Amino acid sequence: MYNIAIAQSGGPTAAINSSLAGVFSEASTNPAVDEIYGAENGIEGILNDRLVNLRSILMDEHDKQLLMTTPSTILGSCRFKLKDYKEDESDYLKILETFEEHNIKAFFYIGGNDSMDTVMKLDAYFKEKTIDIKVVGVPKTIDNDLPETDHTPGFGSAAKYVATSLQEIIRDSRVYSVQSVTIVEIMGRDAGWLTASSCVLRANGEPAPHLIYLPEGQFTKEKYLEDVKACLARYKAVLVAVSEGIRFPGADYDDKKDAFGHTQNAGIGKMLENFTKEHLGCKVRSIELNVMQRCSSHIASLTDLEEAERVGRAAVTAAIDQGKSGVMMTFKRISNNPYRVEIVDTEIEKVANKEKKFPQKWITSEGNNVSIDALNYFLPLIQGEPVLEYRNGIPVHFRLNQ
Amino acid sequence: MYNIAIAQSGGPTAAINSSLAGVFSEASTNPAVDEIYGAENGIEGILNDRLVNLRSILMDEHDKQLLMTTPSTILGSCRFKLKDYKEDESDYLKILETFEEHNIKAFFYIGGNDSMDTVMKLDAYFKEKTIDIKVVGVPKTIDNDLPETDHTPGFGSAAKYVATSLQEIIRDSRVYSVQSVTIVEIMGRDAGWLTASSCVLRANGEPAPHLIYLPEGQFTKEKYLEDVKACLARYKAVLVAVSEGIRFPGADYDDKKDAFGHTQNAGIGKMLENFTKEHLGCKVRSIELNVMQRCSSHIASLTDLEEAERVGRAAVTAAIDQGKSGVMMTFKRISNNPYRVEIVDTEIEKVANKEKKFPQKWITSEGNNVSIDALNYFLPLIQGEPVLEYRNGIPVHFRLNQ
Repeated sequence: MYNIAIAQSGGPTAAINSSLAGVFSEASTNPAVDEIYGAENGIEGILNDRLVNLRSILMDEHDKQLLMTTPSTILGSCRFKLKDYKEDESDYLKILETFEEHNIKAFFYIGGNDSMDTVMKLDAYFKEKTIDIKVVGVPKTIDNDLPETDHTPGFGSAAKYVATSLQEIIRDSRVYSVQSVTIVEIMGRDAGWLTASSCVLRANGEPAPHLIYLPEGQFTKEKYLEDVKACLARYKAVLVAVSEGIRFPGADYDDKKDAFGHTQNAGIGKMLENFTKEHLGCKVRSIELNVMQRCSSHIASLTDLEEAERVGRAAVTAAIDQGKSGVMMTFKRISNNPYRVEIVDTEIEKVANKEKKFPQKWITSEGNNVSIDALNYFLPLIQGEPVLEYRNGIPVHFRLNQ
Repeated sequence: MYNIAIAQSGGPTAAINSSLAGVFSEASTNPAVDEIYGAENGIEGILNDRLVNLRSILMDEHDKQLLMTTPSTILGSCRFKLKDYKEDESDYLKILETFEEHNIKAFFYIGGNDSMDTVMKLDAYFKEKTIDIKVVGVPKTIDNDLPETDHTPGFGSAAKYVATSLQEIIRDSRVYSVQSVTIVEIMGRDAGWLTASSCVLRANGEPAPHLIYLPEGQFTKEKYLEDVKACLARYKAVLVAVSEGIRFPGADYDDKKDAFGHTQNAGIGKMLENFTKEHLGCKVRSIELNVMQRCSSHIASLTDLEEAERVGRAAVTAAIDQGKSGVMMTFKRISNNPYRVEIVDTEIEKVANKEKKFPQKWITSEGNNVSIDALNYFLPLIQGEPVLEYRNGIPVHFRLNQ
């Protein structure tokens, strides 16, 4: 028997803890596995030997249910980029020391394309040194921008929150008799998936958001103004969904970059608000859904949480029963109606540091909305509502510490 | 038999449609009442004779249930201030014309302190002219700033949304190992009720929000910095709840005012973010909960929705069965545990254009939090969750038109 470790990296989602629950559940009944460690703050917790014993924390089915409806990650996260081991082996040696000290033979890393870089490098290092430690990636990101997988855990819950909020915002913006434009800035970095997913409201006959702008499309100020004017001719209150990844043409960006060299975009909503006010003179408001869109587990998609749990389980099967390493688990969509996915593994090189953009073919010819094929893709991912436990009128979260 | 009219004015809440449902339900079974009209966009709909027949819209119990879980108002709203009739009678004559043409003998106006100004003026005018039309106010505002009533419909749902979101935001902000300050700007105009209500998280053992700043307290930049530093010494991630009504000392406000002369405050969150970054240098983020806090019916308080319905019913009883006019319905809290309220009416002069501030005695001596008495006041108002109808994974809203 040996031990395993789990950690999480990158931005929070509502489904990470479900994947943690999945890895834990599958591992806890696997006869090969003894202790199941959680590393605090991702790979930083492995580097600094900050491990918690999950068997002493997740005691029963109730704990697991609470964990699955708790947003973000109880283990904490990090944004840490491993150096190439050929240039600097020191971090690898520290990681190995922790693994050896605790007899850890499999490591599960829940994260997005940056975190898969860590999976790839660790796996390559262990293979090079002929060290038998399996490293498997479990996908997560609200951006839905991981290649090779039909979609990513966390995305469906974010999409459900965005759609639910946008429907409420359009109710709110329609109350007055004056014309108005409401611009909602939606996360997703350089990929338009989450913004595009707001089209699901159409399935219930709601015309809003009337305009959807993605980084994958061609955005010009002139066309935008034309689009908004055309909508105002038909609708009293116009709702615009705009991806944070869109650059306002001509604006001065100071290009703050994170540890992975990604630009931290912000502010397209506010810029469009000012631009619209200036040119149309009507009532204009911009709204940032901010971190709520990645942590609103109170309106999570049950499909998303259940899939996140399943993909965590599948990672354990791949590593421990099938001896796989250097792979990320992926979803393959078998059918849309009824919705069915199967989980397979993909070589980590195909995923790490790569980004899957929203398909051009799903953007309408006008460049300001998405097609029915996109709607059909998104709809299954937001189905179902988890049963939440409330105490004192507030959803109960599973808490490891303050 | 005669007809009645209902309208709504001021900012949206998650509970206005419940009050509309209450007025409708009670009136629809009252033998004195024939048609029940809804006026589009508040008093503007009366002025311009834009009425809808609610009996042909709200057909059954299912419609009513959907209506109660639909945010904002299906009839639209307005921000319209009636002039003094002694100075200009023209609008009063138009209103009277609509009422006479449609044989309307009672008018129910759902709104906040500004809308009660309309109730007061119309009632005074009808009394002066000895015209037998009853005018009754039904309270609503997420600001909870109406005098004479224990609390206002709409507030409990907004408070439940704020608490739920803040709990998710603190989960989100705690994931990284670096210290951080997250500032959440909360609505309420010049009253701190909604910001103060975030203290309910304490009932579940959650120390966040660590700092709560209200317009009723003394806010200085020096004390704020001191407070945040003290919190950072204890907590990795500090959550600050700040009321939109707080003025950043020394900042230049351009004082845009609405039709009622109220300043449209904005931006204290962003100003505090910049100030905190400048002086503490740690990771700082500011979040505006924006209109979502007044329209998030997907996380509404069942207590709030049910009370909103009851207060609508009570208004009909007061006007039609008891012949009252020039009053607003109010809640009187009988006990906290078990929570019980009764509904009584109050002279409109005591409410119109008046504002009830958060009590000084409930602000802690440090001025950066609220007392256990405040917590006990807030808790009953956020209890219970309505059963929502979902279609295609999205809550179903009752829609009158696009």
